[in-house]
Amino acid sequence: MKKLDSLAEFMLEGEKYFLPGLSIDNVIFGFHDNQLKVLLLQLKNVNKWILPGGFILKTEEIEDAALRILRERTGLKEIYLQQFHVFGSKKRNKQKFFKDFYKEQGIDLPENSWILQRFLTIGFYALVEFDKVRPLADELSAQITWWDITNLPDLMFDHREIVETALKDMRLKINHQPIGFNLLPKEFTLKNLQSIYETVLDRKLDRANFNRKILSYNILDKKEKQYSGGAHKAPYLYSFNKHAYFKALQEGLERNF
Amino acid sequence: MKKLDSLAEFMLEGEKYFLPGLSIDNVIFGFHDNQLKVLLLQLKNVNKWILPGGFILKTEEIEDAALRILRERTGLKEIYLQQFHVFGSKKRNKQKFFKDFYKEQGIDLPENSWILQRFLTIGFYALVEFDKVRPLADELSAQITWWDITNLPDLMFDHREIVETALKDMRLKINHQPIGFNLLPKEFTLKNLQSIYETVLDRKLDRANFNRKILSYNILDKKEKQYSGGAHKAPYLYSFNKHAYFKALQEGLERNF
Repeated sequence: MKKLDSLAEFMLEGEKYFLPGLSIDNVIFGFHDNQLKVLLLQLKNVNKWILPGGFILKTEEIEDAALRILRERTGLKEIYLQQFHVFGSKKRNKQKFFKDFYKEQGIDLPENSWILQRFLTIGFYALVEFDKVRPLADELSAQITWWDITNLPDLMFDHREIVETALKDMRLKINHQPIGFNLLPKEFTLKNLQSIYETVLDRKLDRANFNRKILSYNILDKKEKQYSGGAHKAPYLYSFNKHAYFKALQEGLERNF
Repeated sequence: MKKLDSLAEFMLEGEKYFLPGLSIDNVIFGFHDNQLKVLLLQLKNVNKWILPGGFILKTEEIEDAALRILRERTGLKEIYLQQFHVFGSKKRNKQKFFKDFYKEQGIDLPENSWILQRFLTIGFYALVEFDKVRPLADELSAQITWWDITNLPDLMFDHREIVETALKDMRLKINHQPIGFNLLPKEFTLKNLQSIYETVLDRKLDRANFNRKILSYNILDKKEKQYSGGAHKAPYLYSFNKHAYFKALQEGLERNF
């Protein structure tokens, strides 16, 4: 692929390189210290916020495109991105907004420009440790930053629906897919892991129930007791069994009934 | 929209009417009498089978397109179709196959035809009562029929992966979304409902556990006892509370932890 070295070239010639009418939006949930946030960016001279997104090269797998977009915005690699939904409403049409927006950037798009067609977007999400992320704005963006999921700013287009759908999907999948791998130190207590679940689910969990269920997944290896003053009260430490964890991530954990 | 009245016109001019590079494939699971089947069709003069699929009009919501395709193939209306995944592998490329296939039908597609580009497909599934379905082959198909999911024929392209992914998703979602509405008579026993779950999950369930869990969803209304000889042993009848059922379908049922 020829390198597209200017924004104008990208916008005017993008149809040569990208799949038509299709974008990707990544919902990057950040977890740290029992807080759940989402990564949003603000376009230049626009008062609203959007998800970090991009397009799919004609020669690229869609999962690779999602990972590339994630890497470009956060520097993060080797993260598990979950595809969760295609948003395709006709009401997504942003023709007027983008024509004006690009004009302000000095790019006069023709009416039939690829970027002004009806677009569907494929949503992916990931849960990452936000302490490790270096958010990176692109040349169309004024800033990129974390927002508390309970206190989102005004979002453009259907991006609030995309965030809410991702959150709902993550809360459902948490019963069938392990989480926590990139969020905890190598060894941790069950209480550490429980607090991740509590933050994602946004409610308190019963400790005994949680311990019983999480252990039934067989994704944890038991380690030494954590050192503390009163040794008999020290909790056991655990680490993820990497093989079992990723097997469960691929195959899903069967539960219930 | 101008009516496309011949297959040749459809294939040669489709790009005027349809979203580019994007199709829909419907995985229609049929349930009856504790059997789970999937609806497949066979293209003319081809020894393999495919899912019933189609394209999305530029003026159409993707969910409406999926419902239209379902209706065209089965006559079924007002069915809940679940979008579950986008399949976008570059390996989906079917250029050679389709060029030859359409040529055999007397349609010589140009190399740059819309239908010969890279296609992504959005998968939807539904669970319907197969006794009520009148499968309908289109003019490209030799036949359309039900196949037992444990005994699928040779499927084209990535369609086996699509069926397997749909089945896996349905088995996960069964813990978070009610099923059974279109599959049972107005009044039924918990045992009737349990056998649907057992068929979909492909394993036996503990009766007491099942009853406790299904009742905790609050989607069932208790009716009179079913008449039988020994009255004290007659099971209660239930019906779905339609409002609660569809609310649960939209919002998901929170479970576990």
